[in-house]
Amino acid sequence: MSKTPIVCLCAQYDLRQYFGSGFDAYSDFELVTPDQPEAPDQVRFAVAFKPGPDAFDPFPNLELICSVGAGVDGLLRHPKLPKQAHLVRMINPEQAQMMAGFAAWHVIGHHRRMDDYSAFQKKRTWGDAVRPTFPSDYPVAVIGFGKMGLAVARSLREMGYPVTSWASRSRTEDGFDVKSGKAGLEEVLSNAHAVVGVLPLTQSTEGFFNAQTFALMRSGSLLVQIGRGGHLIEDDLLAALDAGQPGCAALDVFQTEPLPPESPLWDHTAVFVTPHIASDSTGAALARAVAGSIRAHVSGQVLEGAVDRNRGY
Amino acid sequence: MSKTPIVCLCAQYDLRQYFGSGFDAYSDFELVTPDQPEAPDQVRFAVAFKPGPDAFDPFPNLELICSVGAGVDGLLRHPKLPKQAHLVRMINPEQAQMMAGFAAWHVIGHHRRMDDYSAFQKKRTWGDAVRPTFPSDYPVAVIGFGKMGLAVARSLREMGYPVTSWASRSRTEDGFDVKSGKAGLEEVLSNAHAVVGVLPLTQSTEGFFNAQTFALMRSGSLLVQIGRGGHLIEDDLLAALDAGQPGCAALDVFQTEPLPPESPLWDHTAVFVTPHIASDSTGAALARAVAGSIRAHVSGQVLEGAVDRNRGY
Repeated sequence: MSKTPIVCLCAQYDLRQYFGSGFDAYSDFELVTPDQPEAPDQVRFAVAFKPGPDAFDPFPNLELICSVGAGVDGLLRHPKLPKQAHLVRMINPEQAQMMAGFAAWHVIGHHRRMDDYSAFQKKRTWGDAVRPTFPSDYPVAVIGFGKMGLAVARSLREMGYPVTSWASRSRTEDGFDVKSGKAGLEEVLSNAHAVVGVLPLTQSTEGFFNAQTFALMRSGSLLVQIGRGGHLIEDDLLAALDAGQPGCAALDVFQTEPLPPESPLWDHTAVFVTPHIASDSTGAALARAVAGSIRAHVSGQVLEGAVDRNRGY
Repeated sequence: MSKTPIVCLCAQYDLRQYFGSGFDAYSDFELVTPDQPEAPDQVRFAVAFKPGPDAFDPFPNLELICSVGAGVDGLLRHPKLPKQAHLVRMINPEQAQMMAGFAAWHVIGHHRRMDDYSAFQKKRTWGDAVRPTFPSDYPVAVIGFGKMGLAVARSLREMGYPVTSWASRSRTEDGFDVKSGKAGLEEVLSNAHAVVGVLPLTQSTEGFFNAQTFALMRSGSLLVQIGRGGHLIEDDLLAALDAGQPGCAALDVFQTEPLPPESPLWDHTAVFVTPHIASDSTGAALARAVAGSIRAHVSGQVLEGAVDRNRGY
């Protein structure tokens, strides 16, 4: 039986190497580079990571494009994205758990005032005058409630934090009461000691974290922004931090990445900058997800992570 | 109906104030100071926090002594601890969740190399050359598997960390395979990137973390010690850190507390010192637990947190 080719559309690096030995387990597939296939019109499947402007041109019959990332905002803006192809986002549970741990680290550190204890230690001072407060007195808002948001919410709940949440569609999910709309946002943000942003980037969420949003937040609260750089109006955040509302921010994503050397975010004492590493994928996990998506597509099953082009995620 | 007196045995502070308004909800009880009761021989219940050497003397008929802390090692060493009284440890779920969050902060920070990212930021450097690794590649060992240990294990599992555990008694609990014995300890410690110590302090766990234990740990691993100071041979830890096994330690408890100013732990770059604040209790939670324990005792029910004097916890 001949192998089913999957074309690897990624200008940045060799996805075969990235997939590593994990892909060998899927012997019915063959990962090929764009110039490899003898019959490019027979290639039905692609894996894409920031594809170049002409990357799709040689492949008129793509049925399914698997995005390496969980966010597909970049892919959906591609001017020549094949109209007929289904799109699937790469989401594996561990990717979401990884993001949850990253968010939890920032939230717990803020709640438990770990910076203060670090400062006490530097002064050789037993800082027990700072009494800890209970997680139940520290509500956390999760903004965006897809797989990532749910994982963040579940992890924080497990450690005793009351979690409120907001998304484009109100619902109850896994015991979480997800609010929506303007009134819902006001309610969720005004009570939260920490706000975790894990929205997808769409037309309606672009610039979501702006002066108006910050005006709804608690004084001294923490913003953990791990969605996309496009959600955040960085100048508005700088002004809001000066006013103490929010009091500090952990930013993993930026309007321009890498964050330019001249950005004032770098040395703002109330900002923790990380280089878009809140979550990641491994070759093995990608291979498993890609193979799973293609098999589900071929057998007519519902695709986990299927992208709705109108919705934008 | 006259109120049932509970005597408050704590030299350090006024427990009535600490209990605060939360205790008002339990109108069948009355919290009294040691000199208050007209008939001390009729006092059957006590709440104790580091009671003085003669604290129990006026009360010959105590049936139940509620410890303010989750650990009762200090109480059990009291030379005049009434022999007939039942002892109960104060454990509420949130206290365990609070400890879980504290442990998770240290574990995630080590796994995700948050110190490195902080250093990158100080140099205005986009540190994405440090690629994150998945939680599944970072097993964590939980040593001691009471309510605290279980909460730590559950929280870490929720965020994708493989958790192994060790306790005095091997068992399966909530899906965790709890090992015991020397071989079990060797297996659990040798694989762990982080080791969280949440043992009770007993004769058999005194000095548990010593040179022999450290010799079983991974090079570069993290020790999070949130049990009792008596578990840790501090000089052995200092020598072990110099050898890089473990590579670093987060210590919340110490042989002497407050940690003496001359301790070399204060400025060791691989040690994070906190002043015994990993967990705490609130007045409201204490009041609920004390009232619950007394009611359960009076009605002959099984006491949650009942202390086995022979076992030591």
